[in-house]
Amino acid sequence: MAKIIQNGTIVTAADVSRADLLIENGIVTAIGSDLLRLAPQAEVIDAAGCYLFPGGVDPHTHLDMPFGGTITADDFETGTIAAAYGGTTTIIDFCLTVKGKPLSSAIRTWHEKARAKAVIDYGFHLMISEITDEVLEELPAIINDEGITSFKVFMAYKNVLQADDGILYRTLLSAKEHGALVMVHAENGDVIDYLIRQALAAGHTEPIYHALTRPSVLEGEATGRAVRLTGLADSQLYVVHVTCEEAVRQIADGRLEGLRVWGETCPQYLLLDISYLEKPDFEGAKYVWSPPLRAKEHQEALWNALKNGQLQTVGSDQCSFNFSGQKELGLGDFSKIPNGGPIIEDRFSLLYSEGVEKGRLGLSQFVDIIATRAAKLFGIFPQKGTIAVGSDADIVIFDPTVKRVISSETHHMNVDYNPFEGIAVTGVPVSVLSRGEFIIRDQQFVGTPGRGNYLRRNKFGNTSDSLSEKG
Amino acid sequence: MAKIIQNGTIVTAADVSRADLLIENGIVTAIGSDLLRLAPQAEVIDAAGCYLFPGGVDPHTHLDMPFGGTITADDFETGTIAAAYGGTTTIIDFCLTVKGKPLSSAIRTWHEKARAKAVIDYGFHLMISEITDEVLEELPAIINDEGITSFKVFMAYKNVLQADDGILYRTLLSAKEHGALVMVHAENGDVIDYLIRQALAAGHTEPIYHALTRPSVLEGEATGRAVRLTGLADSQLYVVHVTCEEAVRQIADGRLEGLRVWGETCPQYLLLDISYLEKPDFEGAKYVWSPPLRAKEHQEALWNALKNGQLQTVGSDQCSFNFSGQKELGLGDFSKIPNGGPIIEDRFSLLYSEGVEKGRLGLSQFVDIIATRAAKLFGIFPQKGTIAVGSDADIVIFDPTVKRVISSETHHMNVDYNPFEGIAVTGVPVSVLSRGEFIIRDQQFVGTPGRGNYLRRNKFGNTSDSLSEKG
Amino acid sequence: MAKIIQNGTIVTAADVSRADLLIENGIVTAIGSDLLRLAPQAEVIDAAGCYLFPGGVDPHTHLDMPFGGTITADDFETGTIAAAYGGTTTIIDFCLTVKGKPLSSAIRTWHEKARAKAVIDYGFHLMISEITDEVLEELPAIINDEGITSFKVFMAYKNVLQADDGILYRTLLSAKEHGALVMVHAENGDVIDYLIRQALAAGHTEPIYHALTRPSVLEGEATGRAVRLTGLADSQLYVVHVTCEEAVRQIADGRLEGLRVWGETCPQYLLLDISYLEKPDFEGAKYVWSPPLRAKEHQEALWNALKNGQLQTVGSDQCSFNFSGQKELGLGDFSKIPNGGPIIEDRFSLLYSEGVEKGRLGLSQFVDIIATRAAKLFGIFPQKGTIAVGSDADIVIFDPTVKRVISSETHHMNVDYNPFEGIAVTGVPVSVLSRGEFIIRDQQFVGTPGRGNYLRRNKFGNTSDSLSEKG
Amino acid sequence: MAKIIQNGTIVTAADVSRADLLIENGIVTAIGSDLLRLAPQAEVIDAAGCYLFPGGVDPHTHLDMPFGGTITADDFETGTIAAAYGGTTTIIDFCLTVKGKPLSSAIRTWHEKARAKAVIDYGFHLMISEITDEVLEELPAIINDEGITSFKVFMAYKNVLQADDGILYRTLLSAKEHGALVMVHAENGDVIDYLIRQALAAGHTEPIYHALTRPSVLEGEATGRAVRLTGLADSQLYVVHVTCEEAVRQIADGRLEGLRVWGETCPQYLLLDISYLEKPDFEGAKYVWSPPLRAKEHQEALWNALKNGQLQTVGSDQCSFNFSGQKELGLGDFSKIPNGGPIIEDRFSLLYSEGVEKGRLGLSQFVDIIATRAAKLFGIFPQKGTIAVGSDADIVIFDPTVKRVISSETHHMNVDYNPFEGIAVTGVPVSVLSRGEFIIRDQQFVGTPGRGNYLRRNKFGNTSDSLSEKG
Repeated sequence: MAKIIQNGTIVTAADVSRADLLIENGIVTAIGSDLLRLAPQAEVIDAAGCYLFPGGVDPHTHLDMPFGGTITADDFETGTIAAAYGGTTTIIDFCLTVKGKPLSSAIRTWHEKARAKAVIDYGFHLMISEITDEVLEELPAIINDEGITSFKVFMAYKNVLQADDGILYRTLLSAKEHGALVMVHAENGDVIDYLIRQALAAGHTEPIYHALTRPSVLEGEATGRAVRLTGLADSQLYVVHVTCEEAVRQIADGRLEGLRVWGETCPQYLLLDISYLEKPDFEGAKYVWSPPLRAKEHQEALWNALKNGQLQTVGSDQCSFNFSGQKELGLGDFSKIPNGGPIIEDRFSLLYSEGVEKGRLGLSQFVDIIATRAAKLFGIFPQKGTIAVGSDADIVIFDPTVKRVISSETHHMNVDYNPFEGIAVTGVPVSVLSRGEFIIRDQQFVGTPGRGNYLRRNKFGNTSDSLSEKG
Repeated sequence: MAKIIQNGTIVTAADVSRADLLIENGIVTAIGSDLLRLAPQAEVIDAAGCYLFPGGVDPHTHLDMPFGGTITADDFETGTIAAAYGGTTTIIDFCLTVKGKPLSSAIRTWHEKARAKAVIDYGFHLMISEITDEVLEELPAIINDEGITSFKVFMAYKNVLQADDGILYRTLLSAKEHGALVMVHAENGDVIDYLIRQALAAGHTEPIYHALTRPSVLEGEATGRAVRLTGLADSQLYVVHVTCEEAVRQIADGRLEGLRVWGETCPQYLLLDISYLEKPDFEGAKYVWSPPLRAKEHQEALWNALKNGQLQTVGSDQCSFNFSGQKELGLGDFSKIPNGGPIIEDRFSLLYSEGVEKGRLGLSQFVDIIATRAAKLFGIFPQKGTIAVGSDADIVIFDPTVKRVISSETHHMNVDYNPFEGIAVTGVPVSVLSRGEFIIRDQQFVGTPGRGNYLRRNKFGNTSDSLSEKG
Repeated sequence: MAKIIQNGTIVTAADVSRADLLIENGIVTAIGSDLLRLAPQAEVIDAAGCYLFPGGVDPHTHLDMPFGGTITADDFETGTIAAAYGGTTTIIDFCLTVKGKPLSSAIRTWHEKARAKAVIDYGFHLMISEITDEVLEELPAIINDEGITSFKVFMAYKNVLQADDGILYRTLLSAKEHGALVMVHAENGDVIDYLIRQALAAGHTEPIYHALTRPSVLEGEATGRAVRLTGLADSQLYVVHVTCEEAVRQIADGRLEGLRVWGETCPQYLLLDISYLEKPDFEGAKYVWSPPLRAKEHQEALWNALKNGQLQTVGSDQCSFNFSGQKELGLGDFSKIPNGGPIIEDRFSLLYSEGVEKGRLGLSQFVDIIATRAAKLFGIFPQKGTIAVGSDADIVIFDPTVKRVISSETHHMNVDYNPFEGIAVTGVPVSVLSRGEFIIRDQQFVGTPGRGNYLRRNKFGNTSDSLSEKG
Repeated sequence: MAKIIQNGTIVTAADVSRADLLIENGIVTAIGSDLLRLAPQAEVIDAAGCYLFPGGVDPHTHLDMPFGGTITADDFETGTIAAAYGGTTTIIDFCLTVKGKPLSSAIRTWHEKARAKAVIDYGFHLMISEITDEVLEELPAIINDEGITSFKVFMAYKNVLQADDGILYRTLLSAKEHGALVMVHAENGDVIDYLIRQALAAGHTEPIYHALTRPSVLEGEATGRAVRLTGLADSQLYVVHVTCEEAVRQIADGRLEGLRVWGETCPQYLLLDISYLEKPDFEGAKYVWSPPLRAKEHQEALWNALKNGQLQTVGSDQCSFNFSGQKELGLGDFSKIPNGGPIIEDRFSLLYSEGVEKGRLGLSQFVDIIATRAAKLFGIFPQKGTIAVGSDADIVIFDPTVKRVISSETHHMNVDYNPFEGIAVTGVPVSVLSRGEFIIRDQQFVGTPGRGNYLRRNKFGNTSDSLSEKG
């Protein structure tokens, strides 16, 4: 049935306009007023006082993922329900391949994980556990047949996921040739590996040593290296989870030279800092990410970079583990603490509240960072990431006046803590539509697991705004 | 009467969508399909195969302006007609004040120049010929009463327009306090003044010496100085007509620190180079701008900066003088050549053709650079600069398949040469609407002098997307 | 009579060697052992356990100088006696010219101030109070006839000493042509002038406002500007009293491009910080220099720059005023506090103690910074600034084991306070020879006022190591 | 027998002085005049019109070294005789270890290669072919017992010599702990390895592809990486054979932050460029070094860096192979061309002629770069690298007026070509003394193979000017 959302303020990455929306067959078909004349039967939804944002696009999630002998607390059902509550209607999850097996088999596994559970639409990046000649040869088929047009290369996690620079360079060349975007985890894994072993050998086992063995200079170095190789390959690069001033500067330098380089940061790096890892009673383990939380002064560099365009997106890097039983695997050895945290639900609200509400970002900038730019970079624009005629009606009805306090007691992720526990945010996604259907209505989940569709993504540079995504 | 533009592809700074447009009372009232049902009487215009761009916003023109004993060849009638032909529907012209007289009297003069002649809408920047205590005291009234919310300060033109750094700093403070944006002409005027006198004393009178006495290092230096003072004042700065790598780098450095600093370049700096000033028979005088055309390698730095967001706008710096009789005032003394050229008509086409068509910019980037960003920065957004429900129906119906060759024989500016003579461009503004009225229809002017409205502009940071303009 | 200094360790900017020194007719005539065989009558001085350093060359002093209605507390007698106690045997003092009078008359005045009083050798820089066409025309004669081969240009002190950028540029050109070195005081005087007036208007009269109205960004900006103009002029520049990271970076950037640019810092900037200006009871006035003391973090940047060659010299900027009666002129108006302090005596010891003793500098680096480099840059090498056969026997016998505490109760400057009061230093100049004569012997002054000679300096680039001074 | 060198001009890294030298027992014992009175029996040598330079210290040679199935054309006899002809009296040669064997056995081998052949004094660096735990454990003994206090780590030569970043970092830590200096060959070996394989697979076998597969961005990247790791380790780094602007900038950045980082370049990079590799008839193979020759514009960056102190030394990287039979191994496969060339003889003359004579360097700078700095950095100062009382009498009597043309027909290296063939230089080492003995007299070799002594070097930071070497 058609729907009309009235009286809201539509916000896109360019515009802020008071207008109504007509939704038919899951698609936005008109923007204007008096739209009932176009669809007299339409259900009318009042959004007075609210912003209508495009549903958030989270380009960085890890759901139902094995890691270090355990598995993330959230799967595609709990994870996407939580995402929906938070205003996110599209995710791109990392499909983890298995060494020695074809990429296609891992993709099959990931489809199975998602198919019956996802409540929002989803695509996959490929997170390749070992890049070999065979893998590089299989890539073109993955791009063309599966619509997976982005690949993650690790410069860290020595002996596990880490690729050497030759592999990174070849991946960049392959991505250029076949129309894909290379993502990097940029930390110098060789040196970190040594620092970890030294710390443990010295009996330094507490969570804070996770951060101390991954100093920001090693992220800056690796980021610069990846940028230089991208320039040499004349290819395209997306640096995931940028945390520090050193890395921002490397990305900015590359962009000043005209390179096709983009960077993502995450709410945790914008709001939290290294001191959280020193919380007593092993609570610091809740704040273990890689790269780690940094000294507070890096936060300003990250906000400035979002404001002035040196960084372009904010992903969640959702990767949740319970404190009890999972994070606790690292008791006595920080290197065994599962990396990651539950962020998928609050990413949208945190960026609005800390960004727009606190005057660091404009409304359109917020939309660009939380939805549009990721959709463009990853080949799902304009289907996703905007409110425009012809786009999927993924809409967040957002009341900017309501305040709430983040807490694991009220969140919807399947995990026993929230790293932002106690932080107050302004603004709430009251209702959320996915392809024109309510999945959240008046802050209650009304969707169905399995309704989410897989997104076969376009090649890099092949969207309807083929080049502006490069900005 | 209502109008419906059908079958076009609407492009905004964020979106590219196939949809129809309904225009009523000069305003866009709906975007979608089947819009005749909303306005059965509407005139239907077919835009098949065409882009619908928001009308260009040219933030930098000098019409009917006295300069060095002569006056620009184009006034508000010929200038705005030419602008309309080229796809520009809004200009912000520089109102030049007179030393010793109140600012308000100059503004009155400028209103008189424009009122009966302009065929498109226009606002004014204030180009203050002498900044004194009295002037700084008058500024708040100008901002509030006249809606003139941007002021240009000159770091060059010694003993004529040049302000010292104390004045620049005070203007930055005043702008911050009262909600205005400071524009700078950034060249080191003291040194240039000496270089000019030395060149003339040495008998170097040809046009090329105009460029040789204004080396790029002096633009880079002055730009950096203005950026540093902006940071100290915590104010906002717009650097006009950036021409060189040194200046781009200074702006980029400021932005990396989070400063509110933006930069504009012009088509002439993107396409032409210093060798044009060496044309024989005094023809080099046609290419005299300040800052001057640069060595060819600077062009790539400018394109990269537009692509990756270190520069944000392209203005025309329209300031036309006939070669015959006007440029010739500088025969025998390059310093007497009137500075400037006719660009208002071709700015839009040149940026599309060299930017989008040649793969340097995306469609949405083009719109942002040619229209949206200037509208946001200068307080006329969302009335101008976009295609959105509620915005003025300033629309360019643009056929991207047609090719034409730029020539003074066919251009509409009132001037006897065109600096881009012979350059072929792809894409033509077939028809142009201003507030829903055709002013160009099928490449013919159909408007009326005097129909243009004066735009009382919002304060800086006070548009409906109050902060995103800061991006 | 000949002298032989035995058993010391001779330190030059290159070497550290255990050897004896033979001095005849005020000149070093041999270095080796068994030197009594060369001069059987020589007086033998034992320097066991001591370093033999070349006498310090202080390139930056203001003795007997009028300033703001008062006159420095130290004249050429008290000032040079104090210098001698401290291990400095050569100074280059700033001759201050008078507006409207020929430069030569000021030089005559300065000769009169110095002739009968100086106990060590001295040269003059010209500190030109107003640079006009007449002044620029007089410069070549000053260089050639007076041997004054360096000129100071002020970018600050608006309406008093400040030159505009055109003047600075012309001075750079003139210096290049005639073989002189331009010195700059690099602060943006226009903006500082405004900040001072605003601070006073707001009732902010305490000494700390001296520092707050001269932020480091304005020193960095002016330094960068001077460096850029030097590059454009292909001339040579010496930046006096560098205080901050921003300025160091600008000098380093210029040097990386191959420019002939050098920088000096002073002990006060290496050891003291802005908090001293907040001392109660107006005591902050004792710490008023221009540029001002900075936040503590700048000190590391300055030490690093000395260590790794981005800064080359340490001058004293000696300019002493009594707290009582002189500094007090600024009670109720910080802008009336005479700028400057008594440093001439402790410069040498402070740099040794904080530099060599604390492991920041090597012994040869210390000698280069405290003596050799200044002698080379300012055209008095190898007569001054080193211990080599043929050089003046200006020798400091320095016991590195003795500790002392700096205090105005024991210092020899004619001023009622010492900014380093209470600071302990390691190492003492036990005896000091000037042209082979003891002027300090066993820590007692044994010289005679008037024995100091005027140094007619070589042109820039015209010493016996004509180019290495450019390093 | 004692010798007295009369009438020369002694040049050190600090001083230029007209004085005579007394040499007794191979040591400089006095500097002055009338020295016959100290040693009436001394042989008197007239050096009128000549400079007396300290013998050159070449910190980078490969003599009698196996490489890719062949062995360098010059061994310790021919190589050191040629060095002596050229004015070099000390070399530090790279001892190449063998995988799986103790370091000590390789050192023994190197002693055997040198002992009976060397005509000048020599030390060894360790060039470790594989850095393992065992190797790192053996290092302290090598430092303490063998006086080998510098180690080379390769970031290139994948699968042959290349160490990963963890190994580099551990070596830096070890060097800091035990008092050694880490040297790096800084190129990104992983990417180069791929580029070489791709080039060969594409049939690109000519010498020019050697350069094209090692682009300068990969040297810049690796240099930056090594600098960052040095900062993290708080250790000391010497970058060998710097060839390009990108690498210079990384070293300069590190130095600006106060890091203990130094860089060496070589005459080939200062004078020759990439076009030499395109010489026909496989002649390009004569110019194959790693890193390769660069585009001409890099030369200015290198000269500027030497002039202003961002680079500190010039080594030869002597590694000679005959064109006939050796370089020809790479016919049909550029990757099989033995890397390196014959430079040991002309390094000194080329730097004097192109540096001092052409006005790029001062005399003292030349001495610092060609001799003193390397002696300080590598722990043989003040025994070597200067002319001072107590130092070895390694003296070059250099006539700066003589011109000669470099040619393989006249050179003394055991190799059939000279890369500088036909280049004219000004200045000739007329006679050369090593420890007071003539080894070259009137341009004839008069020394004896085997007279050279092994130099047990001091630990890093442990010379008599312990810290100034860090400058």
